[in-house]
Order: sequence, then C-alpha cells, then structure tokens
Amino acid sequence: MRIDLNCDMGESFGVYRIGEDDKIIPYITSANIACGYHAGDPMVMATTVVLARQHRVAVGAHPGYPDLMGYGRRSLETFPGEIKNYLLYQIGALGAVAKSVGVSLQHVKPHGALYNLSADDERAASELIEAIKGYDPELILVTLAGSRCAQMAIDAGLRVAREAFPDRAYLQGGRLAPRTLPGAVIHDRDTVRERAMELAARGKISTLDGNEITLEVDTLCIHGDTPGAWELAAAVREALETAGIQVLAMGQSGHGEG
Amino acid sequence: MRIDLNCDMGESFGVYRIGEDDKIIPYITSANIACGYHAGDPMVMATTVVLARQHRVAVGAHPGYPDLMGYGRRSLETFPGEIKNYLLYQIGALGAVAKSVGVSLQHVKPHGALYNLSADDERAASELIEAIKGYDPELILVTLAGSRCAQMAIDAGLRVAREAFPDRAYLQGGRLAPRTLPGAVIHDRDTVRERAMELAARGKISTLDGNEITLEVDTLCIHGDTPGAWELAAAVREALETAGIQVLAMGQSGHGEG
Amino acid sequence: MRIDLNCDMGESFGVYRIGEDDKIIPYITSANIACGYHAGDPMVMATTVVLARQHRVAVGAHPGYPDLMGYGRRSLETFPGEIKNYLLYQIGALGAVAKSVGVSLQHVKPHGALYNLSADDERAASELIEAIKGYDPELILVTLAGSRCAQMAIDAGLRVAREAFPDRAYLQGGRLAPRTLPGAVIHDRDTVRERAMELAARGKISTLDGNEITLEVDTLCIHGDTPGAWELAAAVREALETAGIQVLAMGQSGHGEG
Amino acid sequence: MRIDLNCDMGESFGVYRIGEDDKIIPYITSANIACGYHAGDPMVMATTVVLARQHRVAVGAHPGYPDLMGYGRRSLETFPGEIKNYLLYQIGALGAVAKSVGVSLQHVKPHGALYNLSADDERAASELIEAIKGYDPELILVTLAGSRCAQMAIDAGLRVAREAFPDRAYLQGGRLAPRTLPGAVIHDRDTVRERAMELAARGKISTLDGNEITLEVDTLCIHGDTPGAWELAAAVREALETAGIQVLAMGQSGHGEG
Repeated sequence: MRIDLNCDMGESFGVYRIGEDDKIIPYITSANIACGYHAGDPMVMATTVVLARQHRVAVGAHPGYPDLMGYGRRSLETFPGEIKNYLLYQIGALGAVAKSVGVSLQHVKPHGALYNLSADDERAASELIEAIKGYDPELILVTLAGSRCAQMAIDAGLRVAREAFPDRAYLQGGRLAPRTLPGAVIHDRDTVRERAMELAARGKISTLDGNEITLEVDTLCIHGDTPGAWELAAAVREALETAGIQVLAMGQSGHGEG
Repeated sequence: MRIDLNCDMGESFGVYRIGEDDKIIPYITSANIACGYHAGDPMVMATTVVLARQHRVAVGAHPGYPDLMGYGRRSLETFPGEIKNYLLYQIGALGAVAKSVGVSLQHVKPHGALYNLSADDERAASELIEAIKGYDPELILVTLAGSRCAQMAIDAGLRVAREAFPDRAYLQGGRLAPRTLPGAVIHDRDTVRERAMELAARGKISTLDGNEITLEVDTLCIHGDTPGAWELAAAVREALETAGIQVLAMGQSGHGEG
Repeated sequence: MRIDLNCDMGESFGVYRIGEDDKIIPYITSANIACGYHAGDPMVMATTVVLARQHRVAVGAHPGYPDLMGYGRRSLETFPGEIKNYLLYQIGALGAVAKSVGVSLQHVKPHGALYNLSADDERAASELIEAIKGYDPELILVTLAGSRCAQMAIDAGLRVAREAFPDRAYLQGGRLAPRTLPGAVIHDRDTVRERAMELAARGKISTLDGNEITLEVDTLCIHGDTPGAWELAAAVREALETAGIQVLAMGQSGHGEG
Repeated sequence: MRIDLNCDMGESFGVYRIGEDDKIIPYITSANIACGYHAGDPMVMATTVVLARQHRVAVGAHPGYPDLMGYGRRSLETFPGEIKNYLLYQIGALGAVAKSVGVSLQHVKPHGALYNLSADDERAASELIEAIKGYDPELILVTLAGSRCAQMAIDAGLRVAREAFPDRAYLQGGRLAPRTLPGAVIHDRDTVRERAMELAARGKISTLDGNEITLEVDTLCIHGDTPGAWELAAAVREALETAGIQVLAMGQSGHGEG
C-alpha cells in the first residue's frame, strides 16, 4: 500500500507571503506550484521549485484562472479554447522555470474554481486533458477521485492521480460537501489524520450523513494555508508510515498509471 | 549570401488588435511572438503560432517587462534574478502553446525596453543568456548587431542572430539613434528598402552623420505595427531575392551559429 | 419629445486603440467612459473626458469587471460587497480624472457582463444602487429599459435613464435576444435607424417574433466599436432631429428623473 | 508642540495579508491607504477606511506605480502626464470608497519609488502637485521634509506636511541614507523612539556621520509592515505624549498649512 501526499505551494506573490512552504515540505511528496495567474510569480516559482528539489519533493503545475484579486477561487466564464490555452501557458511557464534548475514536472493539478469546474464539466475536462496531452502526455493529471474528469482522462490515455481531501466532508455520491454546509471543513487534527488513514489504507470515507463510501485514491491533499498546517502534515505522514503505508510521490509509486 | 527577416507578431491582447500579422507573415521568415507580459495572451499566442506554422515561418519568443499598460517600452527597475525568471516564464509559456500545435521555438528576442537594456547592460545580458541556456541552449538569441550582449552570448556558447533595423538611423559606434533625434526613424519606403539591401548584401550602413559603418547582420527587423507595413516587407523581400540574396529563417540559414 | 444618444468611449488601453471616439462624438449626447478595469487607463480616461468636454457631450462612468483579458464581457463570480466596491473604485477614479479638467459626471452605466447581470439580479442591482448613492446620489443610473434594476433604482430614489438598443433584437418580455440567436444583432443601417425612431418617437419596438412591445426609453445606445459606427450615429441623429425629436443629454433633458 | 503619526495601511490584496493594521491603528493619527495599483484592492480599501473611521484616524491616499508584482518599490519610467493621471485615478478611487462610508480624505502621500522620485524630481513633483490641485486643493501633500517637492508645493499654495522617518538614517543634506548603506535602517526600538522625540520636540536629527541637522517636521512615519510594529508605534506615541507633545492628525493640528 502506498499513497502520495500533495500540497499547494508557491502561492506567494511579490512581497506577499502565503503558506509556510518551508515547514510543510519535509512531510509531503508532491508540490503543486502556482503559475502566476491566480497566485505565484516567476521569482516565487523559481524559489519554490528549488525548495522542492532540496527536499526531493516532486513538482507539478497548479494553474488557475487569471484572477489574482480573487485567488482563482471565483468562477469565470470562459470561451472555447481559453481553458486549454490558459493551462498550456501556465504549465509551460512553470516547466521552463523548473527546467532551468534541473527539475522536470511530474503532474498538473488545476486550482480552485478551475479544479471544481473541470472535475465534472466535460468541456473544461476536455480542455484540461488536451492541454496536458499537448504539452507532455507523460504528466499525471491530479483530479477528484470519482469525478467525470478522472474517467475521461483515463479513457484518453493519461496517467491520473485520484485525489481525496481528508479535511473535507463528503456527500453520498463521492462529491465534496459545499463549504457553505455546516461541517464541510474538518478542523480537528485527529479526525483529519484518521480520515487520511481510512482513505489510504481502506479506500473508504464516511460521508456527512454517516454512511461510508468507497473512494480509490492515489494522493491526499494537505492544505497548507492555515497556520500550523505543517504539524498536521507531519501527523498524517507519521500515522501513514507507522501503519506501513508507503508515502511516495505519485510518479514513483506506480500510482498515476490510469 | 542569406538573411533572415523577422517581425514582431501576436501583440494583440483580448479584444485589442495590433498589427496586420496575416498580411505581413507571407514575407518574413521569423516571427517574434509576444508572451503575455507586455502584449499577447494565451489565445492570441495560439492563433499566432498556428498562423506562422501555416506560412512555414519560424517562431520565437518575444518576452518583455510585465507592463501591459506601457507595452514593455518603459524602463522598469529589476532586482537580480527577475529578468532571468521573467524570461523563463514567458519563453516557457510560449514554448508550451507552440508545442501543443507541433511547433518548436527557434529563437528568443527580448522586447522593447528589455531589448535595449540587454544589448549593453551586462547584468541584463547575463540573465538573458542564462535564461536561454536554462530553457534550451539550442535557441538562437536575437540581439543588436555589434552589441555587448552579442559578444557575451557568443562567448557563452549560444547561437546568436545579429539584428539590424533598416528603418532606424545609426550612430557612429553602431548604436541606434535615439527616437528623439530628428531622422531617427526612417519612413520613406525606398530608403528603407535600400538600407535593407546595404545591410544584407554589403554589411554596411550609413550613419546619421553621413559616414558608413560595417555591421555584420543575420536578421533584419521589419516593423509590423504601422498600417501598410506588409507592403514594405514585400518590397524588402523582393529586392533581396532579386539581388540573389537568400531569405531564410535564421535557424535554417547557417546564421545564428555564434 | 426628446432622447439621449449614448456611446461607450475611452475603451483604448495603453497603445491599444479601440473605437473611433473622435468621429462618433459629434453625434452623441452622453459618453460612457471605461474606468480601467475592463478597458481604459488613466491617460485614455483623461483624453476621452477632454474630448467629450470639447464637444459638450456629457460624461458618465462605464465600470466593469476587473477582467481586461476578457474585456468585461465574461461572467465573474463575486462575493457580497465586491460589485459595490469595484463600482465605487472605478466611478471615483473617473470622477477625479474628470474633475481635474473641470468636468462633472452625469451618469453611471455598468459595462458588459455586469450590465447584463445587474439588469435582473437583485443583489447586483442593489450593490450598483448603493454604489451610486454612496458616491453621488444625483448621478443618473443607465440601465435596461423595463429591467428589475430600473424599478429598484426608481424605488430607491435614484434618477434613472432607461436604455434601449436599436441594433439589438428584442424578445417578448422586453429582454434582449441573446447574441447567439440568429438575428440578435441588426447590421442593416436603415433598419437600425428606423428602430431608433420607433423607440424614440413611439416608445415601441418590434420583437424577434414579429410582435410589437412598448418600451419607455430615455436613451439609445449607439455601438461605437464597429468601423463606420459614426456614420450610423450621424444617420440616427439626423433622422431624430428631422422628425422633431430633441436630442439632449439625459441630465439636461428632464429624462433621468426616475 | 504637536506632531502627526502616519502609517501605511490597507496594503493587503485579495487573500494576501500584509501588516497588522488593526493593532497599529490605535496609536497613529493618519492612515495612508493603498489605492489598488501597487497594493490594496476595493474591498481592502473599504475595510481599511472603516477601520480608520472607528478609531477616528484621518485617512489619506497612498498611490503608487501600477506594479503590484514589485509593490511599487521599483522605478518605472513614465511619460509626461502619466504620473498625474495615475495619481488622480487612485486618489479618486479611494475618495469614492471613503465617501461611501462617510469619510473625507485628508492627505495624499505617494508610495515607494514614486515617493522617492517626487521628492526631488521636478517633473514628478509638478505632476503630483497638479493632481492634488485638480482633485481637491485642500488635501495635504505629505512629502519628505526638506525636499524640493515640499518647497514647490508650498509655492503652489498647497498645504504640506513635512515628513521624517525616525527609523531611517539621514545624510548631511537631510536626505535619507540609501537602504544599501550599512545602518540605513534602524531596528533598535529605543533608538527609534529617541529619534522620534528628537524630531518632534527639537526638529533635529543626527546624521549617519555623527552630525546633527535641523529638520522641521509635521508628521512622523511609522512603518507597519514588520511584526510587532504596533509596539513601536505605542512606545513612540507614549513617549511623545509623556513629553507633552500633542499627537494630532496633520489636518487638525494646524500643521500642513504650508
């Protein structure tokens, strides 16, 4: 049994700092690096790739909408081709910065509102898949476990890492409970750690209404933008390793094979 | 004898249109494509690369300062590493968009104030050279013929295309006359065509004070942002070919070999 | 009988030019000036206000979403308060530029996707109304004739100018036909001129399905971003004046009184 | 004897937080609020004005270059009129947001590289003065004590608040020591407090080379972007009040009269 731990990184911009990337990176295996549209800038990207390299953490692109003011969390209408080319632009930009310090990209994980949209919207998912195939068909697509996008990407021959969120409540169908629902975000550290274990070891997660669903997952998302997030990451990792689960980057682990 | 004709392209942004790319492209051999910082956006970039491909015109990155409002023409102070990473970001972004439609980059030509600065400023030139080496050391650097940057890039082992401007007046040392000097920009079409010939056939150009200087050049810049620019491009190309000079993309022509 | 003719202006940005403002301005009575979010920049704003002043054309703010790449035409999710503060920001910015050249604002007309949303969405309309009341309750709000927003603004005590579009097809309820419907945009100049006359003289307009509806209007929108738009503006104005309809800025005309 | 204490505020942007505005505001009398070009956004501006109002702290505009990535700290070439219109745009934007919550602007203080440039560059200072006169000639201009700009503004009939920096080292002529000089920034809290006292009580300050110069000042700048900055603000304020110096907003204090 093995699992990847991914975390969003490099979301600072100019003088603005977000996240404690240097504290959390020892505990994760894959870093999703912002690409300058919703967060990040070329200097932050370079610094973050080097940080990941130092910790032997695999690097992926974390592209989003061109909406720095809204941090890529707001829905933005797009016309055909825009998502594809926004993604190519950002993946290529990070790929170049990474290549200049000797690092290759492992994966692509869309950010925020684009993550949510592409999970289920076929047009968005198609453009995401086309972007990855157009740039480098070996890159792993990280998307919501059980989503339409996951199936479409597998059908298209892409490597896919199915992602779950131990700190988010789930609904019956395997969808994330909307943040507006009470209990949608789980703050208790022990609970999060236990849910991470459930997901990694048993491929099961309990839903908001008390049932249990099956969810095959390749990677768990660790949120890094709360103070003390690194302690949670450390706790999750320790629990996983203590239980004999290998914590490995998705590209190394044999996961992500579609 | 051979020469490349390059033109800045893809400088539209969103609904904003600049240049008559589709009219001028039949007459040039290399297209410098804006990369979203001073001009251009992912959709425009994709469209422009496809246009170049259709006309078998080689494609290069035309990165600039992050200053859309000033079109990259204004000096902007930068701190160490910023130029390098701004360039990597933009070159990579275009490279990805191009790759997705089956096109490889041939060259990099900095835009506007960054072009001017990097021609002679050693720190800027170094970062430009590092960016290209970090991304793809086979890319050709387009820089001002006779500049410090040209020599530095050759010393660093890069392929270099030395550029001249038939529609700009030159000073004694081989520098461009500042635009504020009377006569700095040459508008007469016949004169521009003759100067293009002088440069391509004889490697000579007359200066503003009436002397003649030697200027070894690999590529001539055709400005595309004036109405009717394509007619000038057509005239220049016809004159060159009539005189038996091969008009070939810098990457094909054996130029750009440093 | 009287009517205002309004046109979007000042939508250039940096070196990018859109519209033939100087050609169309002699024929209109109110200029809606972009405020730097979806189009326009401080220099363009200053130039456009001066142009309007020279032609004794009244000036209004034309604020939009912060989406230059999408020209404010794309829907963007907003959180409570964002529309209000985006509008205040832009109206104030234009108000200051205008004041510095001795011009006061007459009206506010939201742009693009924000115009469409605010016409019928109560939260957006409320924030629009609050923004105007918070900045200057004497400003006239320009909104779609017959819209929910028009009624809400009147109820809130604002001056309202009800707007119609002679070059757009209407549906039964008085809504604009979506641009995706065949015939939604009317290109024939004579037809547009006749529809302008119908609207101004009779307060009637025929719908896409061949009926006629009543539409009380205070101002007609003249689109300025197509080549030759000024000729249409001239034709509409001449037809109106020939028919004895006064063409006056909404603030002068006794319209806009709610 | 009286003095104003000013602090830069509202420099957050979107989800990005900078400064501890709510902790420092009880100790200052004038808040310089960023206007969306180098920092700040409409929501942050609204929140910050309300915060200032709650604490009865006077509000001023803190406009900068359009360079969010560089936080307005980098020199940017501008063409004639650009500084003036950039300033009008930003001052008006903040003025509108403030007006909507019942607050009037007291002053304008340019930010970062624009502050430094306008202190001594006559063209920049002229455009700054014109912007204020064009928007509201009653606004107080905050500029470096002893600068060319201070004199020009007084000559132009503007109200001026001469500013000094207790945590920055001075050179003989009254200029700030460049940050690159050792000792240019003073970190020791007791030293800063003493220098604030020297400036407020005696109009004197010791220079980097050990001399003492006279510097008439109306307002002291408290830097807010370091952790614990509010403790320094509290210490400075207490020392001033203990010494019988009135700490009053520049607009109330009879300062700023030119």
